Amino acid sequence: MRHDHLITSKQLSRANIETILDYAAELDADPSAVSDRHAGTVLGLLFFEPSTRTKMSFETAMKRLGGDVVDMGSVESSSVTKGETLADTVRVIEGYADALVLRHPKQGSATMASEFVDVPLVNAGDGAGHHPTQTMLDLYTIRENAGLDDLTIGIMGDLKYGRTVHSLAYALTNFDTRQHFISPESLQLPREVVYDLHQQQDGTGIREHESLEDVLPSLDVLYVTRIQRERFPDENEYQKVAGEYQIDAATLEAASDDLTVMHPLPRVDEIAPEIDETDHAAYFEQAHNGVPVRMALLDLLLSDDGDAGLTGGDGDE
Amino acid sequence: MRHDHLITSKQLSRANIETILDYAAELDADPSAVSDRHAGTVLGLLFFEPSTRTKMSFETAMKRLGGDVVDMGSVESSSVTKGETLADTVRVIEGYADALVLRHPKQGSATMASEFVDVPLVNAGDGAGHHPTQTMLDLYTIRENAGLDDLTIGIMGDLKYGRTVHSLAYALTNFDTRQHFISPESLQLPREVVYDLHQQQDGTGIREHESLEDVLPSLDVLYVTRIQRERFPDENEYQKVAGEYQIDAATLEAASDDLTVMHPLPRVDEIAPEIDETDHAAYFEQAHNGVPVRMALLDLLLSDDGDAGLTGGDGDE
Amino acid sequence: MRHDHLITSKQLSRANIETILDYAAELDADPSAVSDRHAGTVLGLLFFEPSTRTKMSFETAMKRLGGDVVDMGSVESSSVTKGETLADTVRVIEGYADALVLRHPKQGSATMASEFVDVPLVNAGDGAGHHPTQTMLDLYTIRENAGLDDLTIGIMGDLKYGRTVHSLAYALTNFDTRQHFISPESLQLPREVVYDLHQQQDGTGIREHESLEDVLPSLDVLYVTRIQRERFPDENEYQKVAGEYQIDAATLEAASDDLTVMHPLPRVDEIAPEIDETDHAAYFEQAHNGVPVRMALLDLLLSDDGDAGLTGGDGDE
Repeated sequence: MRHDHLITSKQLSRANIETILDYAAELDADPSAVSDRHAGTVLGLLFFEPSTRTKMSFETAMKRLGGDVVDMGSVESSSVTKGETLADTVRVIEGYADALVLRHPKQGSATMASEFVDVPLVNAGDGAGHHPTQTMLDLYTIRENAGLDDLTIGIMGDLKYGRTVHSLAYALTNFDTRQHFISPESLQLPREVVYDLHQQQDGTGIREHESLEDVLPSLDVLYVTRIQRERFPDENEYQKVAGEYQIDAATLEAASDDLTVMHPLPRVDEIAPEIDETDHAAYFEQAHNGVPVRMALLDLLLSDDGDAGLTGGDGDE
Repeated sequence: MRHDHLITSKQLSRANIETILDYAAELDADPSAVSDRHAGTVLGLLFFEPSTRTKMSFETAMKRLGGDVVDMGSVESSSVTKGETLADTVRVIEGYADALVLRHPKQGSATMASEFVDVPLVNAGDGAGHHPTQTMLDLYTIRENAGLDDLTIGIMGDLKYGRTVHSLAYALTNFDTRQHFISPESLQLPREVVYDLHQQQDGTGIREHESLEDVLPSLDVLYVTRIQRERFPDENEYQKVAGEYQIDAATLEAASDDLTVMHPLPRVDEIAPEIDETDHAAYFEQAHNGVPVRMALLDLLLSDDGDAGLTGGDGDE
Repeated sequence: MRHDHLITSKQLSRANIETILDYAAELDADPSAVSDRHAGTVLGLLFFEPSTRTKMSFETAMKRLGGDVVDMGSVESSSVTKGETLADTVRVIEGYADALVLRHPKQGSATMASEFVDVPLVNAGDGAGHHPTQTMLDLYTIRENAGLDDLTIGIMGDLKYGRTVHSLAYALTNFDTRQHFISPESLQLPREVVYDLHQQQDGTGIREHESLEDVLPSLDVLYVTRIQRERFPDENEYQKVAGEYQIDAATLEAASDDLTVMHPLPRVDEIAPEIDETDHAAYFEQAHNGVPVRMALLDLLLSDDGDAGLTGGDGDE
């Protein structure tokens, strides 16, 4: 029997998403209810790229469900260095585990790998591709702080390279949202992503800006991402751009008192530490939400009937 | 009280082997029967060389028994870099664990280390020496697919350097088997191994060949190993040899329909992917068998009376 | 609610220390009594420097309490390489864990980190700063072998750079001890540490020596530390000093039959292997004592009321 896989947030309908978020909220309120749910169950971790928070929160989620993990370890210490293909590696490790979590630098690798295994596989990031569990914890955090309907959100920073941003933007089209994208011109959303978003939502919901100033007062949520130095051939150019997209207390004077500030972390200078202690800051809570959201997903994927309802358009039955 | 150690498959009699394989089959059929057997028990992992599948399957086996592991981590991150001897390292870590698993690049290191500790120690590979749990999972796979008596097996590839092959060949002399060794002349079995095998078994059971062609039709099992590029000073020579010892669908046209193809993995080009979906392919199953076999071994070694019956000639009582 | 943190052994009164050591002895005698105490509880490990025995014994301790760990892994594989601050890293990981263990190369980092988190944080070494759990297992080993009162101890080797030695010496001033410090002049205790010790104890309890010879017969315990080659610009100078501070059977002819020899390990040449099998040797036992001592500390820190009694002067109520 083939199990469900979770490869992209695009496979999730609004009903799927709400099922997961509702269940995550239930687990968040009382994690002890499932602390023995998956005793003896083993989750296989295959991280072909470094990761701290994604890997640790999957591991924590599995252990909070009473289960355990086995970790392939770093690529340098694995059979990959002997020339083993990804298809072989996942087929070996599926023999050790009841489900797999895969992060890999190549876009499309999660889809490819999922075709070789009979246990559920979760994509934890495939290059410039998808990272659906990050999107789910982002949605969970937005819902807890501002609600997902009648939402005005600003997404700011490096919008060109960030799979996190593309996945989130796409998932938000399932809800009644107005999305403002704020970036320097050189780091705008790729045109195909904009096109794709317009297909999902009538164009009135999507706007692009080069400055935060105009839209800040209207925002319920401001989602900030890191601008990576290595994208810029010229250090001066980087400094100029990075400086314009930093948030501090002065910036937020023009914002609503209820504004929620999010960031996928790690941050460097994008958000000043003085914001941390304000009611605006939700980025640490956002990181912590990785645990209940991943608990909910893993529990659904590991359910006995092998059908977590994550592939159809009607996930809540 | 000294416990049993498992250092080499040579210490195991036919009765020992059958006890372990029978128990592994029992666990394979119903792993949940022991899912709480070793709660609170901790297995110490000391891998002085990289390993994916051996380490992960020991870890999985211990967790499926309800226990847990502590891992020394890589040599680079350990006290070994401060000049600590292996004898000191194992004596420290035995204080943390109820049993130890050791992989080390030096032949003889497992025997040496076992003399310093009072908890059971399992050799997971000591250089060109032994790797008895690999042999046990190979035997298990052969027994499940073809039976261990009245067996005709071909062992092909790099027979000169492979401890896996030497251990397996030796263990098979406990059973009624005909062994065909197929390799280029430069990668033949070492003469002392051949001599040793002849001592165990009357010479009629052992044959060496440079080509698979003659023996293929008679084989119940074909065990393929990787020919390592780095053994050849000349790239052309490598390409020629490697090419001759590759298996694909065309090769297997001359084989019995019941032929079982095995490989200790990772493979590079030795077996074409088109074989994977045929009934011949047993190499992923073989890797997966590491879990029930290691569960059986660990459970026997961790048994209360400290005598797993793995050192005498009569292991089944 | 803020929990207790364990940052330095200086925060512990004699009553605190005795509470912990008594409880560790209880756990050592019957670890199974708590094997399910912290099921579902997760300890976060943040080791910004390599460590074998400290990390493994924390991990073992947590697992023997029925709990589990999540490990940040090496710095190279973490978000630290992306420029994340320690304050951010600990605030993210506290969302995954019920308590944190931190090792970091910078002195003062544990105190700083503890100010950002709401879960208990244990300092597992902050550069030249403190390492209180090492001190507790040293005290436990001394108490088991020689008693902590009316004790004459020699502490020998590199006394200049060793945080282990400074912490232990300080903690011992809580008890009725005579401390002899034996080192080459270039590796003497820092003057501020000597001053500090004199403040705690009337000066009669503290003596410095360049040779072991005079004090050896009077010692109950000899605590040996490693002299690190890299402290010496000149190899000959190192060889001369290292040679003078080595212990072998001939050295110990002048010692009491009851002398206990300790070492925080790893050792290089400081103690000859011929001592290992004598009744003097307590260094492997000392390493093993890390488990019951850390079990006791973790259990106290994870207690429901959030007050392990580790910050006041009256820890035994």
